[in-house]
Amino acid sequence: MIELLFDQPHEECGIVGIYLPQSIASLTQAAEFSLFGLIALQHRGQEAAGIAVSDGKEFSYFKGQGLLSQVFDNNNLHKLTGRLALGHTRYSTTGASSTRNIQPYIIETAHGPLALAHNGNITNAEQLRQRLLQKGIGLTSSSDSEILLMQVAGATGQNWVERIANAMTEWQGAYSLVISSRSALYALRDPWGFRPLSVGKLPNGGYVVASETCALDMLGVSEWSEVAPGELVRISQHGITRQSVCPPASTSALCTFEQIYFSRSDSIWDGRSINAVRERFGAQLFKEAPVAADVVLGVPATSIPAAIGYAHASGIPYTSGLIRNNYIGRSFIQPSDELRKIAIKLKFNVLPSSLAGKRVILVDDSIVRGNTSKALVQLIREAGAAEVHLRIACPPIQHPCFMGVDMGAADELISHKLSPAEICQFVGADSLCFLSMAGMMSAIGSTNGYCNACFTGQYPVAIPQNGKDRFEQTGIGGLEDD
Amino acid sequence: MIELLFDQPHEECGIVGIYLPQSIASLTQAAEFSLFGLIALQHRGQEAAGIAVSDGKEFSYFKGQGLLSQVFDNNNLHKLTGRLALGHTRYSTTGASSTRNIQPYIIETAHGPLALAHNGNITNAEQLRQRLLQKGIGLTSSSDSEILLMQVAGATGQNWVERIANAMTEWQGAYSLVISSRSALYALRDPWGFRPLSVGKLPNGGYVVASETCALDMLGVSEWSEVAPGELVRISQHGITRQSVCPPASTSALCTFEQIYFSRSDSIWDGRSINAVRERFGAQLFKEAPVAADVVLGVPATSIPAAIGYAHASGIPYTSGLIRNNYIGRSFIQPSDELRKIAIKLKFNVLPSSLAGKRVILVDDSIVRGNTSKALVQLIREAGAAEVHLRIACPPIQHPCFMGVDMGAADELISHKLSPAEICQFVGADSLCFLSMAGMMSAIGSTNGYCNACFTGQYPVAIPQNGKDRFEQTGIGGLEDD
Amino acid sequence: MIELLFDQPHEECGIVGIYLPQSIASLTQAAEFSLFGLIALQHRGQEAAGIAVSDGKEFSYFKGQGLLSQVFDNNNLHKLTGRLALGHTRYSTTGASSTRNIQPYIIETAHGPLALAHNGNITNAEQLRQRLLQKGIGLTSSSDSEILLMQVAGATGQNWVERIANAMTEWQGAYSLVISSRSALYALRDPWGFRPLSVGKLPNGGYVVASETCALDMLGVSEWSEVAPGELVRISQHGITRQSVCPPASTSALCTFEQIYFSRSDSIWDGRSINAVRERFGAQLFKEAPVAADVVLGVPATSIPAAIGYAHASGIPYTSGLIRNNYIGRSFIQPSDELRKIAIKLKFNVLPSSLAGKRVILVDDSIVRGNTSKALVQLIREAGAAEVHLRIACPPIQHPCFMGVDMGAADELISHKLSPAEICQFVGADSLCFLSMAGMMSAIGSTNGYCNACFTGQYPVAIPQNGKDRFEQTGIGGLEDD
Amino acid sequence: MIELLFDQPHEECGIVGIYLPQSIASLTQAAEFSLFGLIALQHRGQEAAGIAVSDGKEFSYFKGQGLLSQVFDNNNLHKLTGRLALGHTRYSTTGASSTRNIQPYIIETAHGPLALAHNGNITNAEQLRQRLLQKGIGLTSSSDSEILLMQVAGATGQNWVERIANAMTEWQGAYSLVISSRSALYALRDPWGFRPLSVGKLPNGGYVVASETCALDMLGVSEWSEVAPGELVRISQHGITRQSVCPPASTSALCTFEQIYFSRSDSIWDGRSINAVRERFGAQLFKEAPVAADVVLGVPATSIPAAIGYAHASGIPYTSGLIRNNYIGRSFIQPSDELRKIAIKLKFNVLPSSLAGKRVILVDDSIVRGNTSKALVQLIREAGAAEVHLRIACPPIQHPCFMGVDMGAADELISHKLSPAEICQFVGADSLCFLSMAGMMSAIGSTNGYCNACFTGQYPVAIPQNGKDRFEQTGIGGLEDD
Repeated sequence: MIELLFDQPHEECGIVGIYLPQSIASLTQAAEFSLFGLIALQHRGQEAAGIAVSDGKEFSYFKGQGLLSQVFDNNNLHKLTGRLALGHTRYSTTGASSTRNIQPYIIETAHGPLALAHNGNITNAEQLRQRLLQKGIGLTSSSDSEILLMQVAGATGQNWVERIANAMTEWQGAYSLVISSRSALYALRDPWGFRPLSVGKLPNGGYVVASETCALDMLGVSEWSEVAPGELVRISQHGITRQSVCPPASTSALCTFEQIYFSRSDSIWDGRSINAVRERFGAQLFKEAPVAADVVLGVPATSIPAAIGYAHASGIPYTSGLIRNNYIGRSFIQPSDELRKIAIKLKFNVLPSSLAGKRVILVDDSIVRGNTSKALVQLIREAGAAEVHLRIACPPIQHPCFMGVDMGAADELISHKLSPAEICQFVGADSLCFLSMAGMMSAIGSTNGYCNACFTGQYPVAIPQNGKDRFEQTGIGGLEDD
Repeated sequence: MIELLFDQPHEECGIVGIYLPQSIASLTQAAEFSLFGLIALQHRGQEAAGIAVSDGKEFSYFKGQGLLSQVFDNNNLHKLTGRLALGHTRYSTTGASSTRNIQPYIIETAHGPLALAHNGNITNAEQLRQRLLQKGIGLTSSSDSEILLMQVAGATGQNWVERIANAMTEWQGAYSLVISSRSALYALRDPWGFRPLSVGKLPNGGYVVASETCALDMLGVSEWSEVAPGELVRISQHGITRQSVCPPASTSALCTFEQIYFSRSDSIWDGRSINAVRERFGAQLFKEAPVAADVVLGVPATSIPAAIGYAHASGIPYTSGLIRNNYIGRSFIQPSDELRKIAIKLKFNVLPSSLAGKRVILVDDSIVRGNTSKALVQLIREAGAAEVHLRIACPPIQHPCFMGVDMGAADELISHKLSPAEICQFVGADSLCFLSMAGMMSAIGSTNGYCNACFTGQYPVAIPQNGKDRFEQTGIGGLEDD
Repeated sequence: MIELLFDQPHEECGIVGIYLPQSIASLTQAAEFSLFGLIALQHRGQEAAGIAVSDGKEFSYFKGQGLLSQVFDNNNLHKLTGRLALGHTRYSTTGASSTRNIQPYIIETAHGPLALAHNGNITNAEQLRQRLLQKGIGLTSSSDSEILLMQVAGATGQNWVERIANAMTEWQGAYSLVISSRSALYALRDPWGFRPLSVGKLPNGGYVVASETCALDMLGVSEWSEVAPGELVRISQHGITRQSVCPPASTSALCTFEQIYFSRSDSIWDGRSINAVRERFGAQLFKEAPVAADVVLGVPATSIPAAIGYAHASGIPYTSGLIRNNYIGRSFIQPSDELRKIAIKLKFNVLPSSLAGKRVILVDDSIVRGNTSKALVQLIREAGAAEVHLRIACPPIQHPCFMGVDMGAADELISHKLSPAEICQFVGADSLCFLSMAGMMSAIGSTNGYCNACFTGQYPVAIPQNGKDRFEQTGIGGLEDD
Repeated sequence: MIELLFDQPHEECGIVGIYLPQSIASLTQAAEFSLFGLIALQHRGQEAAGIAVSDGKEFSYFKGQGLLSQVFDNNNLHKLTGRLALGHTRYSTTGASSTRNIQPYIIETAHGPLALAHNGNITNAEQLRQRLLQKGIGLTSSSDSEILLMQVAGATGQNWVERIANAMTEWQGAYSLVISSRSALYALRDPWGFRPLSVGKLPNGGYVVASETCALDMLGVSEWSEVAPGELVRISQHGITRQSVCPPASTSALCTFEQIYFSRSDSIWDGRSINAVRERFGAQLFKEAPVAADVVLGVPATSIPAAIGYAHASGIPYTSGLIRNNYIGRSFIQPSDELRKIAIKLKFNVLPSSLAGKRVILVDDSIVRGNTSKALVQLIREAGAAEVHLRIACPPIQHPCFMGVDMGAADELISHKLSPAEICQFVGADSLCFLSMAGMMSAIGSTNGYCNACFTGQYPVAIPQNGKDRFEQTGIGGLEDD
């Protein structure tokens, strides 16, 4: 996905849970492990982060806005002592008041303290929210994650497993969750399996739960498995127990966009290497839309594997003619109107020596609004390229997402408004081809079990009308994704 | 009260509410008025502060740790737009996590958003808390103020007046509250009237509610009255309505310590000028405990009126031989053991020129633990005083407070352990006298209606045993006062 | 001096030097002693502070804007290890770039590193500056203190004593200085003795130099003396040596304003207790300008001794009807125009109970521009005073100061423009009297040896014409005072 | 150069100068252009940055520690108004006191204010420093850049061109400089041309000087040229003048490491595209050291072009099996000893799907100490690689640099201590080959004119013995590079 300059599409959140054995070397290791796991998940959310740790009696926590390296230092991290930890990194919080929206959320309940970190989006959140308010419960945030936590706190059941399972029956939509009581760690995934979540065994005998396997890998995990759709995992001093508490949906609905864009390329999901899937996207894209050219470029960083796949399949040399400037953050000083052309150059360097006089194939993972594609095509032309052929490693995105990916409203999506030929003209490319739906699924290696609603408009869960309204009118903005 | 160096007794909180008419000059005036009102109440709490403002639809707020001048600047204040505002300044928050304990608290309820600021201490908080938890409600803080807010949110009633009134029936202890819905401001006071609260009419046609009249005075109020014990005031576009929603206690229980120490000397409470009451304490103290001397000193700042009262009554000249260094905050760098003698000098300057060779009467408002009295007596002797006579403008404090004043546990109170004669020896004074109970009350001008539990141990409300336990064992620390 | 609200007259700087013996308990004690000494001098400058410490080889330092309690914490203080320390607190630095103007200044010289802290104002600074620039030396600040330091660095001489003495011969104006080389501490005072400076022996065998004796007292010093005009003190491992390196001026020119306003009341200067001098100002003021009244008030904090002196002399009771709010800093949020009346109340509380129906004598140390006097008189009238009589404990200030006190330009001084009768009308008092020059000097107890230029226009040193110009035109602003 | 984890070799500095015409749209454009230029140079120094702007009369500036995105915001940037600007970004400042070492340096001189930003290292700095100190000049920092500035301030000459030219005659070593007087901009380069510096014409008629052409490109420059060795450029309202003020060295001595590692791949230096040169390094490396393999990897980011060059020359597919985590800053929390294996994974992700069972060629630009090479080889093996062949795109580094690149002391350099075969064994590779000196120079396309001292020990300028000593003993640390 070519990111919109300074207005990139919202990304998802990353969550991590740590349970360490009594034999740990240091009381702050759970917090450290959480931090390192979150670092591996930083690509899922760069705007705020928090870590909560239970020492068996109560939680301590630290939260802040910014990258993990800006939020945490030895000082605040090492005040978080205990063997259970939850971590969360999220994509957006705005305004002075927003600190209260940073996760993990922690509350006192009749059964002791409880903390929760959430990745996903609950489609019936408004209905659940009204139900809680009618019961006389006050809520402190606008987040659907607080609703989940309050529902668990008030659910019936003899223990947390029963209470969580009972609460889950009412939740529609996408949720991968880690929950911690005083003394046990819980991990669960919605019955559709929209978002990834895996659990692994740490070399020291503890456990780690995380959004992606790259975080498990970071912590030296070799033995691991995915949390299954509808499954609830409990980790305590009695070891790990796993049970299916919610019947999985008849057909799972894994988010294809995790394969395309969100997940880190060294993660494994649904039994597949993300990097390998993306290389196959590129190879398939060549099969569907070959073109005579001299070099293949990818838009850094997420499109590089598809570009390499295209290059290998076509025999056209891959080159690194486009480099991303990693020093530019999202909230950095924006050039004034007069300097708008500088903006794209702040983010991408083009290497004229690789491009001058060449016929260039530019591979991107997706097109959302089209503005950055246009700017990049122009940049490549100015670097002397003879031709620019744009190849997109997924089908046209024509519908908003209600399960946690803020694509924007329908009429902000360029493929909702324009045909591929019109988009080609808009961005100024010599040719433009999208990967076909069938080609994409065959590259993934699965014909069903994935949610492709953003391409097809076929949603696997019911979407409330007011949610639809929000997304089908201009300028209404996206759903909040936690 | 001679404050303990770097460990001064906990003070109370200050609260303020503002309702402005539609004709206001600027959208940030409610926030500004709140800030100025809080500045007048800064003596009631110096460690954290917050202001929440409703624009008729939702609340914005800003909170932070420190003095008001450290928390607020034009930047954060001027983001708070709207005609309703609540402000709170409190005495203590500790630790990284404590931001969540800063008031006002704001929640969403079934009837819209609600904000609350509280001064006092609920004696049956633990029982109320358990009841909420049992209903499945999760709580985010350890504060009794959140309990009050949640109870109001879930109370039955057709409107906020009914809901607040219904919730109040369950509350035991001290509470002066300002509550704001989206569009109306509520102020109420417990049936005993422990803590002060007054409401006044602003020159611009709006209203202000505040802990003390000095805040009303700051805002130019001339027409005002106290919120009566058990009374609920509502201020909205329909003007002000007042009703007694809770039958006042058969005998009111105003906190004598507001007269002695907490309230600012230019405030008026219970129809009495605090300054005049304190001067009468001094005069009465002379009547009860005269002594031949050359000068009268007061411990700055709260004991000055009593010292002046003593001086005028006795004819012995008042002098300013002891000056407080206002640049020393509570959390400032503490001298190492070796430098302990510097500590007292960081806080107080002594003027040898006023004291050398003189027989000195030192008037203090109260003695809690006695350490600072001891240090000051020594300082005054080193400045050359021939004699030092300590006169205390209230009786010996022998019992802990459960209504919002953290005196410390019983065995931390020097008068719980030692007789006046023993205290005199401990502090090294030539003589030491306390004001009598009868003398104090006659100086106030009222023989009953006040809570004197810290002197007598007779509590006006039932104290739960676990509360008692906390205070009657060493080192357990004080109740949290919001 | 009644301070102008939010635009108070510039105050002077405070300096301190510490030399500790090899036997000190902790390597950070010199830094700590500097900090505690500076706290005692905080009234001389509240806007920025710095401490530099030599470990015998090189200097470490920390500087920042704000009060000492805002600049220093255990973290930054305890990185400053060594037995020699210099501290400085100053009244003003403005703008982002101004950190470079915070003292102490530290440079490398041909003879090793050198640090300097300065209180005063060099009247021939511009001439000295041009001389340095002509020598090809680049200067990093606009401060006259850097000029002094560069001159010492480049002076001829076999050792620092000779070099400092040689440099001093060129300096005109006011300077009290502490200078530290790698291993020795130097203290010196201009030949006129404009500003105070004292040296004392610490209980632990070390030495302290400080602007006022209150800092010596804070550190437990009992044996001390003033640095004499023109004297240079050297403290090293060989002990203390003192010599007159510059012939003292034929007549000394001690700043009367130190007695009136600047110095802390518990300091001793020129052999006199500041507090006692101020009480005599009040007594003399009564003698010169008695008036029938019921109470005497002082403007806190500097005018209290004079008010007490007036009260004792007259037999009219002193009362504390005016209280200063210590929580209001200089840079705090300023009320909008509409709220201007709040401004004075942010800073001063009036006690109506002390004033209602009374004939009030308000004693102030001085009048500079007159605006605050006017506001206070109105406040006292609104509190119900029947009459307000203003008594000023010094003569009318009619001329600017070029020796380090920023009085403002001549035409900003109300006494430059209006007669006492006109000022009385302007401020709205029932009567207004200034202390006479002869009365002031007799209260001090010395008929000459003081600089009274601000009252008389007779300057003890030549004032360069451009300096004069700056001060005799409107709105040109004051000389920078270091 | 494989960077040492959390202890990467010191990089150079980046400098930029901006001169805008009178017709500019906004007074802050010079500051903005400086910032954007510095962003393009951020790879040359990430630890501190500053911008100084002249408005024709005086300089304003802002400096801070951290990345440009951390130092600058709209608030501080937009206070810098004027048409001349200097910017600097540097690699290291340490300790609380180090703010004074952040450039640009600004001083007042006899000829008005002067600012300077420096990239390089003066080899005779100590000698120049002593000369200044002997003249009685005090210096405020340990930096050689301040020495240059003081020398210019004190040089003889009728104007800045003459004074700069006269000062230059005494300077030995590497210096690319931008200097700004009140009203003109100067750019100069040492006679050997060690470090790059280019000047270009802005689209709006102004000029920009910058360390690398990528910064010119960022600002839309099409017309540009290098500042020649020994050349001084002056830009003022009279346009641009260029003159050779110092005879260029008989043989230039351009730093080969700019081609290998420092410069950004889209820059052009010495008439050569850095990216193309690096691709030729890779191609030549294949020619010299072919090996049968399945994939070619590069160590991100600087080694990617050489890896692609190797892949294209060999026909072995290039793959992105190693990805750098851009969220890890240099000062981030360091894992405890137990977690050391996590450290390398914090910085690099390995893609097992690209590597499992493959024979891998890993191309790196250089080896300094060897530790990271070792960690990466192990990581790649653990990802399942069958063989790992390390190819280094430059010869063995055996000697320290005295011209501004902190390689470390001789005995820290692994090639100083071990033969290639021994290094191969140390890092655990199957084979290891370095590019030959002749191959490297032929890839650059020039047989002389470059400084290869770090490979050969032949230094183009005399190195003072104490400088040598510092570098030839263990643990003495590197020269400061400005």
